[in-house]
Amino acid sequence: MTRLICDISISLDGFVAGLNPSLEQPLGEGGDLLHEWAFAAQSWRESHGLEGGEKNADSEVIEESISATGAVVMGRRMFSGGEGAWENDPRARGWWGDDPPFHVPVFVLTHHPRETLIMQGGTTFTHVTDGIRAAIDQARAAAGDKDVLLAGGASVVQQCLKAGLLDELQIHVAPVLLGGGTSLFDQLGIEPLRLDATRVVASPSVTHLRFRVPAQTT
Amino acid sequence: MTRLICDISISLDGFVAGLNPSLEQPLGEGGDLLHEWAFAAQSWRESHGLEGGEKNADSEVIEESISATGAVVMGRRMFSGGEGAWENDPRARGWWGDDPPFHVPVFVLTHHPRETLIMQGGTTFTHVTDGIRAAIDQARAAAGDKDVLLAGGASVVQQCLKAGLLDELQIHVAPVLLGGGTSLFDQLGIEPLRLDATRVVASPSVTHLRFRVPAQTT
Repeated sequence: MTRLICDISISLDGFVAGLNPSLEQPLGEGGDLLHEWAFAAQSWRESHGLEGGEKNADSEVIEESISATGAVVMGRRMFSGGEGAWENDPRARGWWGDDPPFHVPVFVLTHHPRETLIMQGGTTFTHVTDGIRAAIDQARAAAGDKDVLLAGGASVVQQCLKAGLLDELQIHVAPVLLGGGTSLFDQLGIEPLRLDATRVVASPSVTHLRFRVPAQTT
Repeated sequence: MTRLICDISISLDGFVAGLNPSLEQPLGEGGDLLHEWAFAAQSWRESHGLEGGEKNADSEVIEESISATGAVVMGRRMFSGGEGAWENDPRARGWWGDDPPFHVPVFVLTHHPRETLIMQGGTTFTHVTDGIRAAIDQARAAAGDKDVLLAGGASVVQQCLKAGLLDELQIHVAPVLLGGGTSLFDQLGIEPLRLDATRVVASPSVTHLRFRVPAQTT
């Protein structure tokens, strides 16, 4: 059965992006530090059309996620960094060029409807305007037997946690204090919730923490 | 050489205490969930004068910390939960009764001077009113060849990080989302800072992450 899995890198102080994100620096000040472990991994580089990289435990964690993922859900801000009407958005086709690294259907949560974008390499961007549940339902249908990966940003992750939609959480903790930025969890406002810690994979560059989220009665 | 080591339990969403801490529930709503791993460990129980408990990896991590610690620094709020004048503080001798679990000199950062409290079992509580650097200097002097443990709460940890005083950070991540409360790091306001990840110990109950904090030029 298709699971909804949030898979995201954070700093030790809990941020998914640094302060002052911009078109030039979409992850904000220091935000790239959260992803250095991925940039160095062979599987990440391959999915981005790049050669080289290390075949290490980090690369295996990414490879596992790529193999398991049949569709992706993300927020508008993660998709383009923009807001408002698409015609005014300088990254209206996403950050990743003509051949984005997803290679599966991607569902982008937005308030602004538009046609699905058919990119190279198997990536499509479908824009969903009727809320997070609709985006996840569409992604589940597209994923077949595989999983739906919730890629971020913080806002969509928080919406899913509050709505009790998430099945698993894989957090890649980078050994970095950003000192400020966009907090993944923030003050969620949910009741205290125990998770099942299912796996830890550690390397000098990052610690991968994996949790199952118990079914919530909402 | 004596190191200053912050050793603290947090929820996956980054809180050291839940919402609405009170005299009845000093760790706030759900805050006890952060420490269940410790309550179950033989070494924690022994330091608190209790029998039983598991001799597992978690217990070894605590035992290691106890053995290495020659003095402790903590904030007033962690010490008693109170604020203001001591004569109005219902926990003016701390939370832990006549024989607190520290068994070394403890330095409590406060705005309100008083005499040192000599407790049973080797614990003393010295109240330091001239700031975090003074508290740490006194603790270093008392620790001899051992380390100074920075026990919390969030405010004193943040003060130490901002001042570049911390040598190491051991974070015990409990598999719990508290949904709100006192954030350990909050928006620290420091420049992005890489840490050296020196060790990960994982059990089903908790993941112990250990970091060295590089010397900062401040």
